[in-house]
Amino acid sequence: MAEIKFEIQKSIGAISESAKGWKKELNLISWNGREAKYDLRDWAPEHEKMGKGITLTTEELKKLRDLLNNMEL
Amino acid sequence: MAEIKFEIQKSIGAISESAKGWKKELNLISWNGREAKYDLRDWAPEHEKMGKGITLTTEELKKLRDLLNNMEL
Repeated sequence: MAEIKFEIQKSIGAISESAKGWKKELNLISWNGREAKYDLRDWAPEHEKMGKGITLTTEELKKLRDLLNNMEL
Repeated sequence: MAEIKFEIQKSIGAISESAKGWKKELNLISWNGREAKYDLRDWAPEHEKMGKGITLTTEELKKLRDLLNNMEL
């Protein structure tokens, strides 16, 4: 499997943690040296392994924020 | 490939749309008849095809909302 290089440029925060210590985190990440994107993903402790996740643009985060603020959570 | 059954119980909204009409949507979805979860995912028009995405609990959405409200977007 090809290597994926990533650099976490900014840790925004974690939104949950599993019993095994994996955290679902929002970060600003540069993948393979490309321009950094926001990324919502599961991570093992110390970012040793990554789970599935999605990347999001600033514009998408704004829209998501607005949707969430209009929900009764 | 095994069939995945899903029922979109609530459409919260879309946060972006690609040139080909795929939308990144936040929905409340029941997968294979199980209890519905929030789901952030890319969808083709009419929900004919789905892209990658993640499921989120109500608690995770609350934390995500709070993180986003504290960012300068």
